[in-house]
Amino acid sequence: MRIGFIGLGNMGAGMAANLLKAGHEVTVYNRSRPKVDALVALGAAAADTVAAACTGDVVFTMLADDAAVQHVAFGDVDLAGGIVDSLAPGAVHISSSTISVALAKQLARAHADAGQLFVSAPVFGRPEAAAAAKLFVVAAGAGSTLERVAPLFDAIGQQTFTVSDHPEAANLVKLSGNFMIGSVIESLGEAMALVHKGGVDKHQYLDILTSTLFGAPVYSTYGRLIANGAFEPAGFAARLGLKDIRLVLEAGDGLEVPLPVASLLRDRFLALLASGGSELDWSALATISDRDAGIQG
Amino acid sequence: MRIGFIGLGNMGAGMAANLLKAGHEVTVYNRSRPKVDALVALGAAAADTVAAACTGDVVFTMLADDAAVQHVAFGDVDLAGGIVDSLAPGAVHISSSTISVALAKQLARAHADAGQLFVSAPVFGRPEAAAAAKLFVVAAGAGSTLERVAPLFDAIGQQTFTVSDHPEAANLVKLSGNFMIGSVIESLGEAMALVHKGGVDKHQYLDILTSTLFGAPVYSTYGRLIANGAFEPAGFAARLGLKDIRLVLEAGDGLEVPLPVASLLRDRFLALLASGGSELDWSALATISDRDAGIQG
Amino acid sequence: MRIGFIGLGNMGAGMAANLLKAGHEVTVYNRSRPKVDALVALGAAAADTVAAACTGDVVFTMLADDAAVQHVAFGDVDLAGGIVDSLAPGAVHISSSTISVALAKQLARAHADAGQLFVSAPVFGRPEAAAAAKLFVVAAGAGSTLERVAPLFDAIGQQTFTVSDHPEAANLVKLSGNFMIGSVIESLGEAMALVHKGGVDKHQYLDILTSTLFGAPVYSTYGRLIANGAFEPAGFAARLGLKDIRLVLEAGDGLEVPLPVASLLRDRFLALLASGGSELDWSALATISDRDAGIQG
Amino acid sequence: MRIGFIGLGNMGAGMAANLLKAGHEVTVYNRSRPKVDALVALGAAAADTVAAACTGDVVFTMLADDAAVQHVAFGDVDLAGGIVDSLAPGAVHISSSTISVALAKQLARAHADAGQLFVSAPVFGRPEAAAAAKLFVVAAGAGSTLERVAPLFDAIGQQTFTVSDHPEAANLVKLSGNFMIGSVIESLGEAMALVHKGGVDKHQYLDILTSTLFGAPVYSTYGRLIANGAFEPAGFAARLGLKDIRLVLEAGDGLEVPLPVASLLRDRFLALLASGGSELDWSALATISDRDAGIQG
Repeated sequence: MRIGFIGLGNMGAGMAANLLKAGHEVTVYNRSRPKVDALVALGAAAADTVAAACTGDVVFTMLADDAAVQHVAFGDVDLAGGIVDSLAPGAVHISSSTISVALAKQLARAHADAGQLFVSAPVFGRPEAAAAAKLFVVAAGAGSTLERVAPLFDAIGQQTFTVSDHPEAANLVKLSGNFMIGSVIESLGEAMALVHKGGVDKHQYLDILTSTLFGAPVYSTYGRLIANGAFEPAGFAARLGLKDIRLVLEAGDGLEVPLPVASLLRDRFLALLASGGSELDWSALATISDRDAGIQG
Repeated sequence: MRIGFIGLGNMGAGMAANLLKAGHEVTVYNRSRPKVDALVALGAAAADTVAAACTGDVVFTMLADDAAVQHVAFGDVDLAGGIVDSLAPGAVHISSSTISVALAKQLARAHADAGQLFVSAPVFGRPEAAAAAKLFVVAAGAGSTLERVAPLFDAIGQQTFTVSDHPEAANLVKLSGNFMIGSVIESLGEAMALVHKGGVDKHQYLDILTSTLFGAPVYSTYGRLIANGAFEPAGFAARLGLKDIRLVLEAGDGLEVPLPVASLLRDRFLALLASGGSELDWSALATISDRDAGIQG
Repeated sequence: MRIGFIGLGNMGAGMAANLLKAGHEVTVYNRSRPKVDALVALGAAAADTVAAACTGDVVFTMLADDAAVQHVAFGDVDLAGGIVDSLAPGAVHISSSTISVALAKQLARAHADAGQLFVSAPVFGRPEAAAAAKLFVVAAGAGSTLERVAPLFDAIGQQTFTVSDHPEAANLVKLSGNFMIGSVIESLGEAMALVHKGGVDKHQYLDILTSTLFGAPVYSTYGRLIANGAFEPAGFAARLGLKDIRLVLEAGDGLEVPLPVASLLRDRFLALLASGGSELDWSALATISDRDAGIQG
Repeated sequence: MRIGFIGLGNMGAGMAANLLKAGHEVTVYNRSRPKVDALVALGAAAADTVAAACTGDVVFTMLADDAAVQHVAFGDVDLAGGIVDSLAPGAVHISSSTISVALAKQLARAHADAGQLFVSAPVFGRPEAAAAAKLFVVAAGAGSTLERVAPLFDAIGQQTFTVSDHPEAANLVKLSGNFMIGSVIESLGEAMALVHKGGVDKHQYLDILTSTLFGAPVYSTYGRLIANGAFEPAGFAARLGLKDIRLVLEAGDGLEVPLPVASLLRDRFLALLASGGSELDWSALATISDRDAGIQG
């Protein structure tokens, strides 16, 4: 297929490379040029504008947040037209960014109005998984469209979960996944502050957890970061964690679903940011539990 | 070794049987007689009183709660003397019940005053694991005592974690483990209410979680119960969940450690009990998230 | 002075009438015409467009929410130009609506860019107080501008509090005042559920509170509504309460201030809305405490 | 009447003095002697033992906490018999201390078993109000008993509220009153952190609140302490605040009433204690809001 790919960050670069490897024609666009050159070296064509990346059958977006996606989707003075203005009728926009449910709905409407197709396909996995084509893809949209782009998901991931014919449902699943991670960080932070103050070693406590009921990557990964107190460099910065919790709360607001643990996470992230932790890894949330327990950092 | 075993519930019966299999002389005591007979059939001696179970080198207790342990430890009008009155100097009381940090401290002092030894050794695992000698033992107490009773832990479990020379530290670890389970139930309940109201199937959502970062028994076990809405018969009743959260909060209070997630769990359990859910499985906590979201049960 | 007044709801109608009584020339604009006629009968001029209400020295806005204020301020296809486009250089926009801190900042910037002046002046008080010129005005903006419009505040209120030269500070004070009311409703709801279940009459409990430390309108007003269980017709609808709590949380987010009580209020309001309580008085929040306590409504 | 009075702290001394002024024969008991001498100078008789204070028609207790009341009620090695052992059949024990619902129930049973009468009569008011006979008395117990002791309540207070024939209901009302105060402290702390960080003066903010809907002593008193940041000497120490919140939560637990604001208060008090604030005034809870918002103390 002829594919455009917009957004060559840590995740997007790997995804675009795997689409190339699978034999697709890929035209890439990125705000900063060096990332484009790396993909060109692998066989991609370079687009100088968003519009130039929208001439094929499909265009992927993999960007940082709602603002960035809105910018490329709806255009702006410094862009020669956005995706909605540029894509051919019948072509597909696949949004893999972690964006809000509300924006996914807005994009679905805008593309439908323009005779285009829209799929939400956020992914689970870290940059290494993106590079290794080992992502988990959570996809939602019209069945026929999903069928058409299924080979592309196979090219970037190890498994695709189709959750709904409403695109925004996939974003909801992605956001609630990040909420689940945040809740693990918070409860680990509280439990570790408790046992530590009771004289138990944090690493040993983690070992007991992961040896018994809690033997999952989410506990070993974040538990080790917390036990080590090693929050730099950030795998995922606290301010991004707060952003996603905000989006989860917004989704809950829209659906009238109270989310007390998410509310707690929001307040804890704000406390972390207010103490200067914006750029620390989001597992640094645990330092707030330590501080509240009077444990010296 | 000559061992007494007090408390032949679902857990204790399996543990006592495995001590017998390992070749120890075991004298068992239980409030109701039929459970005693079952062990006698496996080679145990029957004790008619707590005191009669305290004539050996070691006595285990595996009982429901603080009140039950206090009763057998300190005696009462309807018992011919408690453990503290009955045990020989130098003999060891191993407490495997899920009791409070405060009671563990009190027992440690009382046994020390009586020239006896005390070890806390709560276990992780369900009745099947107890029967199969696959428990995880979390042990704390004096190093020399732990060494002496190590073969007994090997007889009942697959692994022993020694966490401190203060017995109550093991109880803290056990309680905070139950807190971690409770926090998984709560966050799963919230996330599932959210995605369900957003049109995503709960089972599929769980499948996505356990296929990615959350592939641990705590998610598959409790997630399935929640997705199925099957809370009877209870594997662990809500009122017992509340009891353990209460003990975690008490431990936090004693150590001056705020535990906001545990506070939330307490309030949610009270709401569940107030709506008649006392005897449901503690994963029924998720029904409160559903109710708050206006989802019909 | 020559004044425009946009928004003749329960509050605005009284305020505009009092400006007339104080001898000012008032031109009024409202989406629905009958409210305009009532003011014309008192001596006001009628404006058919927003622009027509912006020809004087000052224009007041007193509207329902951010969307309504944005609409009249920045214009739209169905309006002949918004306030920013219409107001003369040096003229003043006084915003009395309960709007977000973010929108107040945006308005301040837009008016400054257009050479106009902007003051935030939200009010405390109910429609009766507005009619009786007994409002409390919380004003913020440039000192010289506030001085100039001070007689207008005297015409509508009994007291003016000047809190800052940054307009949005007045909105922050107004929003946090509504947060304080919400927190009284929530704590009254919890306490009344508790004492009621303990056999104490809710009205008598309220009487004890207001006879002792809690003798303030906020307790007598909302306490009576809760004790009576009379939530219709709404003095202030639950969905508006939620809206203001949302704005408080947004303000806290922007300033990096965690607000755990506000987070709780948000979740409780969502539970109320999810059970169909959107149009009940916001004191109906107390029904959630009752439900959680298993008290039949 | 012939009255015993046990507990001559800041509150009890004033109450006992007012009983003397009203013409009653008062025999006083206190752990430390100087306070006894002060009352003897006003005409009281001194009791050397609890029993010696229990020879009249009525005995008051006004002590610090559950432990102190249990001690004098049920006796101990260093006391020559407790109240239950000493009081004549038909005599009345009036408990004015802030104690738990559970202890009030236990006392009611014990006195009934001994053929004695029991009334709970906790009071609202500070030491100055106690000295001036301006307390508010919340009384519960059998109607005939309350009638008999009504003149004593008139001697110490300005108003008596009879809330139930179950004594513990009065304790529930007292505890929930302290919960209401705590919730005001918390919400004021959050709101003041918010407006302060938004550039508004805390004192002015408080002035706006108390001029409008919040004109009650609870706001002016605690608001001033918070705005001044003056938490020493404590009017009521944080550790006592935590104690009462603990009792409220216990009462809620017993009645199956979730109390999310009380849970939050508990966690905040623990954070305050963990940072060394145990002996500060309980309004110092607001420093936790400041700290979480990154405001320098």
